[in-house]
Amino acid sequence: MASYKAPLREIQFVLNDVLNAGQLAAVPAFAEATPDTLNALVGEAAKLIEEEIAPLNASGDQQGCTWADGEVRVPDGAAQAYKLYWQAGWVGLAHPTEFGGQGLPYLLSKVVEEMLCSANVAFALYPGLTTGCFEAILASGSDQIKQQYLPKLATGEWTGTMCLTEPQAGSDLAAVKTRAVPNGDGSYALEGGKIFITSGEHTMADNIIHFVLARLPDSPPGIKGLSTFVVPKYLLRPDGGIGERNGVRCVSIEHKMGIHGSCTCSLQFEGARGWMVGQPNTGIQNMFVMMNMSRIMVGYQGLGLCELATQNAIAYAKDRKQGRAFNGGEQIIEHPDVRRMLLTMKAVTEGARVLAYETAMYVDLAHAHPDAAVRDEAQDWVELNTPLVKAFCTDSAFDLGSLAVQVYGGHGFIREHGIEQIVRDAKILCLYEGTNGIQAMDLVRRKLMLHNGRLAQRFFAKVRSESTGDAPLGFIAKPLREAVDELEATVHWLQQSFKTSPEDAGFGAVDFLRAFSLTYLGYNWLRMAKAASAGTDETFRRAKLTTTQFFAARMLSQVAPLCRGVRNPAGELMKLEAEAF
Amino acid sequence: MASYKAPLREIQFVLNDVLNAGQLAAVPAFAEATPDTLNALVGEAAKLIEEEIAPLNASGDQQGCTWADGEVRVPDGAAQAYKLYWQAGWVGLAHPTEFGGQGLPYLLSKVVEEMLCSANVAFALYPGLTTGCFEAILASGSDQIKQQYLPKLATGEWTGTMCLTEPQAGSDLAAVKTRAVPNGDGSYALEGGKIFITSGEHTMADNIIHFVLARLPDSPPGIKGLSTFVVPKYLLRPDGGIGERNGVRCVSIEHKMGIHGSCTCSLQFEGARGWMVGQPNTGIQNMFVMMNMSRIMVGYQGLGLCELATQNAIAYAKDRKQGRAFNGGEQIIEHPDVRRMLLTMKAVTEGARVLAYETAMYVDLAHAHPDAAVRDEAQDWVELNTPLVKAFCTDSAFDLGSLAVQVYGGHGFIREHGIEQIVRDAKILCLYEGTNGIQAMDLVRRKLMLHNGRLAQRFFAKVRSESTGDAPLGFIAKPLREAVDELEATVHWLQQSFKTSPEDAGFGAVDFLRAFSLTYLGYNWLRMAKAASAGTDETFRRAKLTTTQFFAARMLSQVAPLCRGVRNPAGELMKLEAEAF
Repeated sequence: MASYKAPLREIQFVLNDVLNAGQLAAVPAFAEATPDTLNALVGEAAKLIEEEIAPLNASGDQQGCTWADGEVRVPDGAAQAYKLYWQAGWVGLAHPTEFGGQGLPYLLSKVVEEMLCSANVAFALYPGLTTGCFEAILASGSDQIKQQYLPKLATGEWTGTMCLTEPQAGSDLAAVKTRAVPNGDGSYALEGGKIFITSGEHTMADNIIHFVLARLPDSPPGIKGLSTFVVPKYLLRPDGGIGERNGVRCVSIEHKMGIHGSCTCSLQFEGARGWMVGQPNTGIQNMFVMMNMSRIMVGYQGLGLCELATQNAIAYAKDRKQGRAFNGGEQIIEHPDVRRMLLTMKAVTEGARVLAYETAMYVDLAHAHPDAAVRDEAQDWVELNTPLVKAFCTDSAFDLGSLAVQVYGGHGFIREHGIEQIVRDAKILCLYEGTNGIQAMDLVRRKLMLHNGRLAQRFFAKVRSESTGDAPLGFIAKPLREAVDELEATVHWLQQSFKTSPEDAGFGAVDFLRAFSLTYLGYNWLRMAKAASAGTDETFRRAKLTTTQFFAARMLSQVAPLCRGVRNPAGELMKLEAEAF
Repeated sequence: MASYKAPLREIQFVLNDVLNAGQLAAVPAFAEATPDTLNALVGEAAKLIEEEIAPLNASGDQQGCTWADGEVRVPDGAAQAYKLYWQAGWVGLAHPTEFGGQGLPYLLSKVVEEMLCSANVAFALYPGLTTGCFEAILASGSDQIKQQYLPKLATGEWTGTMCLTEPQAGSDLAAVKTRAVPNGDGSYALEGGKIFITSGEHTMADNIIHFVLARLPDSPPGIKGLSTFVVPKYLLRPDGGIGERNGVRCVSIEHKMGIHGSCTCSLQFEGARGWMVGQPNTGIQNMFVMMNMSRIMVGYQGLGLCELATQNAIAYAKDRKQGRAFNGGEQIIEHPDVRRMLLTMKAVTEGARVLAYETAMYVDLAHAHPDAAVRDEAQDWVELNTPLVKAFCTDSAFDLGSLAVQVYGGHGFIREHGIEQIVRDAKILCLYEGTNGIQAMDLVRRKLMLHNGRLAQRFFAKVRSESTGDAPLGFIAKPLREAVDELEATVHWLQQSFKTSPEDAGFGAVDFLRAFSLTYLGYNWLRMAKAASAGTDETFRRAKLTTTQFFAARMLSQVAPLCRGVRNPAGELMKLEAEAF
């Protein structure tokens, strides 16, 4: 069975020594969030997660969820663990105090989320979707709706869902057909079927609040005719308590490659009563508030699995004896190819952690910093980084899961070791909340274009200023500068090409996102090398510098060829008729 | 559910137009193997495989194998299908006629194997291991043992296994502990436990013949003290018929990520009677005869899954409507990023097929060509290509399985579509018969060194002579020449570096194998482009040229950066102490 121990040393290093997360305590809203407080809370969460939630990961996978007569049964132990988790206050960590949250930094909540996802990513979806639903209602709901639903969503006492997808409407939400007809009393009657609804039905919470995308009778067709509704599983009594069952039921659950502990439901809305959230026909905008945060959340799911894969592979490689390496070592960590895999895993996981944490810190600054200019810049970073966090961390989770299996050899293929589960759990991360191809299109089509290309320019300027000078870190600083030049040239090419030949940008988008992410990780490794060099822990410093060296020579070097590939016109490739495939 | 239709047009194109497999009919041993005969037999096998075996793929995955009281139950339908398959003569296709085979080219048997593995890779392991056992006994067994066992293994009436792995002895067979003690009557008593034994126990065949690696009491320790034994499940009566049960039993089966339809057994040998195959203490050599052929077989399993992933992804992308592409198309095949994935899949699958088929044809030439010089050269190609076929085709199966899921979007994660099964089934291919890291070491450590580097030089010369001139295929010929130059420089670096610093070669081996394989595929795409251009099918030609263009611009270009990465000394990276990871 895969084991999990929260990487507290790494987490503290990134928070304190690389990102200076202590700066948040200088923001009035987060005055309490001193480094000591953050560290103490992370340690406390780690304990609960390691002891109560990680042990359910393998059994949840094995047992899965079952459906009978509209009811869903989650794996043994999940309901009790969920109750422990929300009652200890971890769900509402970053939610506003006025609705029952604790008002702590979003960054802190994401650090906890990383750990939760390492321990049990399927379980993490229950609080995860609840937070998504909370954020959507917070952003667009009326005061009355907020008062009715937010306090119990904030704590996690009730759970939430996002009901977007329908069989014909996945990546293309314009095709949503679910209808919402006014009842005349301010409520609406919802009719239609939704699929792939995470946490859509269970009995772990007293109520489930569905956030539903649907179409009013007189709305225009397509994407501009969608509105959002809150539809509770149980209607609320006037005093806010649980009333009668609403007209939404779970007609089946999916059998999936992974995340077996999370139920994926088909829901049928049959005259279910709902209340509009936000204005008519602004559903897509309302939804995107939550969607962007959810994309970051999914990135953290990926980060969590990267960490799980990496720490288990390292532990196995230190222990497993097989043959004798060139240096005489018996443990397989001494075999060069195994070491190559482990360094790849460390380089990606630790580098991605800085990307993900920095993005979360920018979310905090964008929301709460008193200076508007700081907020604006922070928001630019959030916009730019969101597709990188989502796509890079999740692609990496799948890749590192596969590498971990490879380190385990044939044993990795056997279920009882718990390593192949990482691969199976990781794959969905590359698909939901917008496939990684869609993330890449968001990057090239929207993020590069926003504010006249300001977002990418900020990145280039920041990396260049960080990477001046050569000794003693020239081995990473120099290739990093070259990578940035190559990336900038590619951004210009994409910005131009997109005007006349959008298919070029579409064709190269995924490779471009990878090139951008690797450059970002180069920037992170440079900063980590500096921070570790300034520290007093010699072994830690050596590990960081060795991994930096590995990253510089063997991963950062992928940026230029990826960029050159992206700058190839795709015209001819698009011309081949579908029938000829 | 994934569907499978044998790609007969592609198969015939590679056999007839690219590789000129008709040359085999000029070899006296294969006089009957005219192109018409080969095509007819491939078509006949395709029919049986599509109709009888492919339909069992999803149900076999779902149902899996079960164990109770030493007996293993295979999925419903497998036993009947296996009987149909061997009785129709497909198992013994390439085995010598003197032992009941049909004496047809190995190449033909591999084409059939590709199709069988696309249809149902778990099922393919039953005949696959049987063939491995046949080959091992054929190569090293005494006349008596051959007479006793080969005829029924040749046809597949009895099935075979390879019993090598033990818990402490996976990649490192030197650690094998199973003992064989002489009984004084020419037989041996085997004692010990073997794990991961494919097809180790079942009742689909009247007998199971185990090929077992074990240690004589007076043998030296390590790799030089191993011998091989044939151990039947049922002892043979003097008349060759089935006698009493031997002392080997299945104590458990594994629960695995994939290939659920194939049983993976732990076998306990408790005084089981066995007979030595070959000479004492030559077990490793005896085993490698079979192991090399098995590596090619596993490569074909990978090729089969590449084809399955590719054809299903293409069919889905032609059918599925979602959004509107830049060119106005509604089917997702018109979205540039989807098309990028499909072209990647086509480029890899079709290119890998030429590699795999050419290798099999060289096996035939090495065995049966009347001219010793031709045999020698063919054997060089087999040696060089074996690790490429094994590792590249299987890594690609996993990668393309993952891409296919990505093309399906969220639906790809749902089991009923049968696409995620490809990913799960593919992963084992990267692990067994020598992990792909071990294949890479075989390439850099052995194959590059053999005969003073002659093998790689043959390849460079062949590719250079094929890629002279520019118009009209310069778009692939020129980057191919550059790739060969880069590869040759890297071979020289590896050959040098291996003498003084073997860790460098070990560290870069996997990337080098990939660079070599991509260059080989470039050579294949150049040949396919030529052959398609010479044909009369305009649509087919356009598809091949477009895919060649894609491969040249976006995949062949990976060779140089991979090679540059390989030529980085790894010394510093190997110095970091294990505890610092």
